[in-house]
Amino acid sequence: MKTKFSRRMHNLHNSYLREIFVSAKAPGTISFAGGLPNPQFFPTEAIAEATAKILKEKGSSLLQYGFTEGYPPLREFIAQRYGTQYGLTVKPEEILITTGSQQGLDLLGKVFLNPGDQMALESPGYLGAILSFSFYEPDFVSVPLLEDGIDIERLGQAFQEHEIKLFYGVTNFQNPSGLTYSEAKRQQVAELLEQYDVFFVEDNPYGELRYSGQDLPPMPYYSRDKAITLGSFSKIASPGFRLGWIFAPPEVIAMATLAKQGADLQSSSFAQGVLYQYLCDNDIEAHIAIIKQAYKAQRDLMIAMVEELFPPEVGLTRPDGGMFLWLTLPEGQSAFDLFYHAVEEGVVFVPGKAFHVDGGGENTLRLSFSNSDQATLETGMQRLAKAVKRLLSDKQSVGQA
Amino acid sequence: MKTKFSRRMHNLHNSYLREIFVSAKAPGTISFAGGLPNPQFFPTEAIAEATAKILKEKGSSLLQYGFTEGYPPLREFIAQRYGTQYGLTVKPEEILITTGSQQGLDLLGKVFLNPGDQMALESPGYLGAILSFSFYEPDFVSVPLLEDGIDIERLGQAFQEHEIKLFYGVTNFQNPSGLTYSEAKRQQVAELLEQYDVFFVEDNPYGELRYSGQDLPPMPYYSRDKAITLGSFSKIASPGFRLGWIFAPPEVIAMATLAKQGADLQSSSFAQGVLYQYLCDNDIEAHIAIIKQAYKAQRDLMIAMVEELFPPEVGLTRPDGGMFLWLTLPEGQSAFDLFYHAVEEGVVFVPGKAFHVDGGGENTLRLSFSNSDQATLETGMQRLAKAVKRLLSDKQSVGQA
Repeated sequence: MKTKFSRRMHNLHNSYLREIFVSAKAPGTISFAGGLPNPQFFPTEAIAEATAKILKEKGSSLLQYGFTEGYPPLREFIAQRYGTQYGLTVKPEEILITTGSQQGLDLLGKVFLNPGDQMALESPGYLGAILSFSFYEPDFVSVPLLEDGIDIERLGQAFQEHEIKLFYGVTNFQNPSGLTYSEAKRQQVAELLEQYDVFFVEDNPYGELRYSGQDLPPMPYYSRDKAITLGSFSKIASPGFRLGWIFAPPEVIAMATLAKQGADLQSSSFAQGVLYQYLCDNDIEAHIAIIKQAYKAQRDLMIAMVEELFPPEVGLTRPDGGMFLWLTLPEGQSAFDLFYHAVEEGVVFVPGKAFHVDGGGENTLRLSFSNSDQATLETGMQRLAKAVKRLLSDKQSVGQA
Repeated sequence: MKTKFSRRMHNLHNSYLREIFVSAKAPGTISFAGGLPNPQFFPTEAIAEATAKILKEKGSSLLQYGFTEGYPPLREFIAQRYGTQYGLTVKPEEILITTGSQQGLDLLGKVFLNPGDQMALESPGYLGAILSFSFYEPDFVSVPLLEDGIDIERLGQAFQEHEIKLFYGVTNFQNPSGLTYSEAKRQQVAELLEQYDVFFVEDNPYGELRYSGQDLPPMPYYSRDKAITLGSFSKIASPGFRLGWIFAPPEVIAMATLAKQGADLQSSSFAQGVLYQYLCDNDIEAHIAIIKQAYKAQRDLMIAMVEELFPPEVGLTRPDGGMFLWLTLPEGQSAFDLFYHAVEEGVVFVPGKAFHVDGGGENTLRLSFSNSDQATLETGMQRLAKAVKRLLSDKQSVGQA
């Protein structure tokens, strides 16, 4: 008897990602679950204009097959922007356009990982990455996050004790915790990468959404040989394009391009052309400034409401940017139990356990503040506060019984 | 010392796919290499109108994240069309939207194949599929194609002698050979699939481009349990969208959806929305009829020019549809040698050896007739005829020396 599906399908870590997207679509319920941008800031009209213009000027090539590596002017644009932003000299050959930065994870998993290879992950870590890498059946080694980024001692220990091939992390306003690597931490990580010959896959979808503190360069600034950065247009322009990129040493790009050829030949020429035209005709930096101002207000409001409405024993992170707040319930409490109360109140979030590959995190949860206007955010947080109070009083009465 | 890249990257079969796309872009040279649609028939204006309309009506949802399974109305459209065309009752749950049908290959490889699993392939076979499956390290078992489709005796033998898990083939106007499975052949294949519990991955990007003979239903018509069909909008609307689909039993769709979540979360909401609006506002069947009329004329012209200009010892297929003609040089001749002559004359094609995973096919070549207007096609074929004559006279003089 043949086993129908491949071994990797039986070994997948639990993923709640689909449920997040589904719950985000359910009517009536307020969702702080999915990491969705606020559609209010999608440049819909500018995109319509860009589409009309480039279809008129270059319709035939836009609707035809293109290069696996991506639309050349878009690669050039991305490469040059690293220069403007961080003084990095980047060649287009170091950029591969991907179908969202999620595809970058899949391609790098394919290019680097044999079953049983060891890779280091942040704990808690991004669900989509855990899922993506799981298909290549590595052994995950979890390294805890601290307030200023990865626990560098534990990372060094992991590199020493294990044959780590890749280290995956989100350096800016991490998903799910909201935490950010300090400059010192980035330098220390780069030193470890060089010392132990490990590639760092830096996932950086939120890096441009900083609301406080100082912008820091992506990891290739600190290690050009060993750092790979994944970028995305989803959070600064629109997720609907599904366009991101890998910035990596040329030999890695060459391998990832071969993998991409097998995976989908190329990302949509149409979406790439329209996005490029939009970037040419509009001031993306000004657009990002508008989003940042709004998200900053949403972040501040959500934090203020936790402080005002939630019992003081509920802990929270105070992220400098991004989309997420991370809450910690008192020890022994379960975010899954909270979830059931919350659904009854009409609000959802993601229980933190989902972000831990080797257990733990039962009392943590992730809230997204990006995809809610002020009124929705206030109503949702009031509902969540009720759910938290019900949870804590339930437990107390159980304890007393 | 760590081996940097994964084992699968070292085991890849040679692929000429990238070179095809690159050569298709080189100026001056006429390319019969890439399987590119004729951009003259891209519905550029209608797409511009569809984009403007749907961005105005549904901009926010179009630019937001969507479902991994795809844009629901587009899945519905595809499902219903199988009913209109072939009387098949298909539910949207049996359809997964993919980033081109190429992604369908990758997802199915991921879902089904363990390293060392055996899978059957047509010989010659589609390069992109060979590449895509190679990443999952199966052992390929080649089964020859005959005029009326796969060699059914050899296929049965392969199923009996090997533990075949998947069989991959292109039933209509195959890439590269142009050959088509007869109705009887489809039924025989379905019986073998049921008997030996094998899934057939039917790649069907050209199925709607039939210029002679009778339309035949895709393989799920003959075996609903064991046949998976990959469809594509690339050849009937535009490759620039990078949109295709998998039509498969729901349990396979569920697994492929999980794999897709890891691979790219979803295909572009923007491209899906625009394509759907285009399909609603335009008569796609009338559009396909226009393409078919043009491609039929191009096919007929290319065949006529081979018959008129090429030495009679050069054999050719007479495909009933699709994009490709398959030429066979006299035994002992090399299509690679011909390629060098052809480049000098200013025309390129794909040597047939590339389509054979276990050798052979040295004297064969693939010509694409889809992406050339009449004048280009005539000039290109005159150049190729010169190259063929030079090759054959070179060899004769070598033989005489």
